[in-house]
Amino acid sequence: MINMLHQMTLTAVPNIPLIHEGDDLAAFIVQGLASADFSLQPGDIVVVAQKVVSKAEGRRVRLNEVQPGPEAVALAERMGKNPRLVQVILGETREIVRAAGAVLVVEQRNGLICANAGVDRSNVDQDADSETVLLLPLDPDTSARHLRDRLLELTGVRVAVIINDSHGRPWRAGAAGVAIGVAGIAPIEDRRGERDLFGYELQHTLVALADQVAAAASLLQGQGDEGRPVVVVRGVSYEAREASASEILRPKHQDLFR
Amino acid sequence: MINMLHQMTLTAVPNIPLIHEGDDLAAFIVQGLASADFSLQPGDIVVVAQKVVSKAEGRRVRLNEVQPGPEAVALAERMGKNPRLVQVILGETREIVRAAGAVLVVEQRNGLICANAGVDRSNVDQDADSETVLLLPLDPDTSARHLRDRLLELTGVRVAVIINDSHGRPWRAGAAGVAIGVAGIAPIEDRRGERDLFGYELQHTLVALADQVAAAASLLQGQGDEGRPVVVVRGVSYEAREASASEILRPKHQDLFR
Repeated sequence: MINMLHQMTLTAVPNIPLIHEGDDLAAFIVQGLASADFSLQPGDIVVVAQKVVSKAEGRRVRLNEVQPGPEAVALAERMGKNPRLVQVILGETREIVRAAGAVLVVEQRNGLICANAGVDRSNVDQDADSETVLLLPLDPDTSARHLRDRLLELTGVRVAVIINDSHGRPWRAGAAGVAIGVAGIAPIEDRRGERDLFGYELQHTLVALADQVAAAASLLQGQGDEGRPVVVVRGVSYEAREASASEILRPKHQDLFR
Repeated sequence: MINMLHQMTLTAVPNIPLIHEGDDLAAFIVQGLASADFSLQPGDIVVVAQKVVSKAEGRRVRLNEVQPGPEAVALAERMGKNPRLVQVILGETREIVRAAGAVLVVEQRNGLICANAGVDRSNVDQDADSETVLLLPLDPDTSARHLRDRLLELTGVRVAVIINDSHGRPWRAGAAGVAIGVAGIAPIEDRRGERDLFGYELQHTLVALADQVAAAASLLQGQGDEGRPVVVVRGVSYEAREASASEILRPKHQDLFR
């Protein structure tokens, strides 16, 4: 029987070590896959957790070296947060979207709406003399492109890369994976003008393709880097082109919930 | 070499026919899987598109049989919508969350926040004499439980069931799959109190497990029912228990974006 099944496979890359500044993440991915006799194929989507990208890029901040300004001190006092941490968050923030209780939702430097501008300390190795937090990559699209290019260099295989993070959402509990950087994949699938089964024009015409891939990979990654920060997704149809995760961000004036 | 890969596979059930009121959806799933020599395994998650569940349950409404009331007429005029359609939407609505331009976001009868209360006409076969729309299942958790129980009856295999739909989101473009009904799976993974790699208590403690599975399945389903409305997800760890998709809904007083 000819197998006509539509299938999609996600494989966590084994044996990724703890990541430090300057590490060649793509080389670790290739080595990890080789240790399992698994080869990348053209069209695979390699999903990499933000945290390991940030670590490789040295995006650590030692809080005892941070001087909180007056805005950070005031906000920290109101929210019961560490003023040095709030200063770091504000340094990554374009605009505060909501600050209520202990929840600080902002528009981050790259336009992402997320809690604490993506600044986090879980799964970050701590210096002995200072609490240490991790920022998002400076430019996650560029990080994704570098990974994609380096994987091509090492393996000869052209893949797409998505850098993902976990975000809370309005209305619904729990954090879900989203794409914060992309390379070689259109993050939104545009089906405007297509017809349904009965010839009627489709209603939901924009599909959050990269976010759905990011969410799927997140199921295997678990939280943070736990040793499974990279997942290879195979079997997803997508438009392969130069792109940016900023295409996912809804302009403020088109957003009913800003 | 022992294969220690963490993997997850998604398989679209082939040969699901167009669904009509009264159809035994579980039987079609079993037949479709049999046609590909694919067997369900304990622990599999069967993700079923809302649209086929609604069709099997006869949740069709013929718009020319709907009498719009004054609220629907006023809202429809303001939004440039069909007043009969708006009447149907309001009939499924607890509270209007936003009405701006042509976008109507409501709290639907079951507590979901979504556009048009989930009422949709794409991929709905139309009666000759009336435009026809489809409502969400009356109680998607009950629908999921019936499917789970019927699959057990037909195959002897206990699976979890998620009924998914595609929702737009604030801040981010594109619709993504979410779980609107569940059976046999805790929709939120609660990791409160767990420690990270370095012994620090985890920050993101609630994981949107069922929504991430719904989003992953959505990548294979494509839009609407296109012939691939059912996807079997294998390899996800989850807590198997009686549960409700209402556990995903954030109470209004805890929501910063209502």
